Amino acid sequence: MNHGSTPVTIRDVGLRDGLQILPRTVPTAHKLQWLRAAHAAGLREMEVGSFVPPARLPQMADTGEVVAAALALPGLVVSVLVPNLKGAQAAIASGAHSMLLPLSASHAHSLANLRKTPDEVVDEIARIRALRDASGSACRIEVGLSTAFGCTIQGRVDEAEVLRLVRAALAAGAEHVSLADTVGYADPLHVQLLFERCLDAVGDRLSCGHFHDTRGLGLANVYAAWQAGVRRFDACVGGIGGCPHAPGASGNVATEDVAWLFAGMGVSTGLDVDALLALREAIGRDWLPGEALHGHVWRAGLPKTLRAELA
Amino acid sequence: MNHGSTPVTIRDVGLRDGLQILPRTVPTAHKLQWLRAAHAAGLREMEVGSFVPPARLPQMADTGEVVAAALALPGLVVSVLVPNLKGAQAAIASGAHSMLLPLSASHAHSLANLRKTPDEVVDEIARIRALRDASGSACRIEVGLSTAFGCTIQGRVDEAEVLRLVRAALAAGAEHVSLADTVGYADPLHVQLLFERCLDAVGDRLSCGHFHDTRGLGLANVYAAWQAGVRRFDACVGGIGGCPHAPGASGNVATEDVAWLFAGMGVSTGLDVDALLALREAIGRDWLPGEALHGHVWRAGLPKTLRAELA
Repeated sequence: MNHGSTPVTIRDVGLRDGLQILPRTVPTAHKLQWLRAAHAAGLREMEVGSFVPPARLPQMADTGEVVAAALALPGLVVSVLVPNLKGAQAAIASGAHSMLLPLSASHAHSLANLRKTPDEVVDEIARIRALRDASGSACRIEVGLSTAFGCTIQGRVDEAEVLRLVRAALAAGAEHVSLADTVGYADPLHVQLLFERCLDAVGDRLSCGHFHDTRGLGLANVYAAWQAGVRRFDACVGGIGGCPHAPGASGNVATEDVAWLFAGMGVSTGLDVDALLALREAIGRDWLPGEALHGHVWRAGLPKTLRAELA
Repeated sequence: MNHGSTPVTIRDVGLRDGLQILPRTVPTAHKLQWLRAAHAAGLREMEVGSFVPPARLPQMADTGEVVAAALALPGLVVSVLVPNLKGAQAAIASGAHSMLLPLSASHAHSLANLRKTPDEVVDEIARIRALRDASGSACRIEVGLSTAFGCTIQGRVDEAEVLRLVRAALAAGAEHVSLADTVGYADPLHVQLLFERCLDAVGDRLSCGHFHDTRGLGLANVYAAWQAGVRRFDACVGGIGGCPHAPGASGNVATEDVAWLFAGMGVSTGLDVDALLALREAIGRDWLPGEALHGHVWRAGLPKTLRAELA
């Protein structure tokens, strides 16, 4: 099939979202090999670390060094996660192109995870925007709105509340907002309708879909969000980043799977699926031995039809 | 979410499509336990066997007995696979409600798999229709058009050829046609567009979508076909039925996953996901020990949001 029109951007978040929940620390040298292999496979956006207290997440302690290496790769947009004003200061100092601020649409999850209400987090976003502007930095502020499709603690999350927080985050100074389902609660119809509703309200400032494959609907949800108009997705090579509350469940949608989905549809991502599959192998063999990797297309490889079209 | 309107029918094809590729033979007593558990979980359509020469597929030799037991279950629509006129005679004699005739949209696959061209198979469909009518049987004739989205031997399969064969099968006397991707070549956009095109041409005589999850897009393809208007899907509890040419790859979409997909969307299937998950366990433990089962929702279970709605 060839329905190519607007290309899709896939941001690999493995070095942050993928590694953050693992108790092990991947040595910086390995992270840099990983980073360069991902760039060589065509990735042009990556979330490479998190500016959080090293005592809390020692596996993210080298984020400054990883950002510096990432900035040296041509054409790569470098994102980091930032939980608060102090992290934002570090992100600005690092020269990263983008800082991703977590906001939870679930009041209960926000209190449990960030120890703040959603509206207190929105206030922090405003402070971060003021800091960013005062610093003269061009570091883009993107808010990742998690539990947008339901919450393991609270259960249902009202659509009106999601829309209110999307608007509040933008009003507080975020340039972009993404909607995330980190727990595998979303179904594709919900995804399509909620993204359509938010895109109607705020246009392309709603910029990204972030899906986990916990219950097998990750790729269906990517497709549904694409149908709604989303052209940017988070993913991890090897589908790492599973939730510690759902043992054995898979994590983020796999970068190589999302790349194959869009390649099959004739939509350009700029990614080399074979290079991504080689990177997946290196991750499992060299950098995360013994860790469960996930994803799908690695089992059977690309279809012959697609091979013929790519040749 | 609740977008319930037209219910969706899921036909479990595990006792035929799931078992047929396995070298082992499941004892009839186990098949009947499986059948009854599936019925108790809410399934009201099942493909329970295949009328092929027992020397070729000994694991299907008890199909007549399984059909008889299935016909005793209230409200169950009983399908059997039939490769030729002789099989159709047996299906009619068995009292099954529906016979499923395989037709391949790929010329190369048809020759390799059925030793006939697609048009020779269409001629056989006409003979089967004449036999059925002469017998006074009400056994419905359904053609399963495989390789509709690509073929492991031939590669691309032209959409015009798919449409031509859908029309030819109906003209030859089939009451219904389904489109199948048994090799995991389909992407959801292709699925949506091809189903829309065929539904435009022949309406609800195109009655079913049959997807394998070989490369992870099975559920995305179910969603895409549903978007196009399809309201009936084949699936297997435990995702069995993998292709022998793609070792390790998963098989049919899992019944319990399709049930969860639609439950999440608020679309009624009449299925009890917990009972399906219990059946999956029994299959892996008692009836196919050592066999790889697949699927997704079994890992993490149903989301809390859905549990609350179902309660």
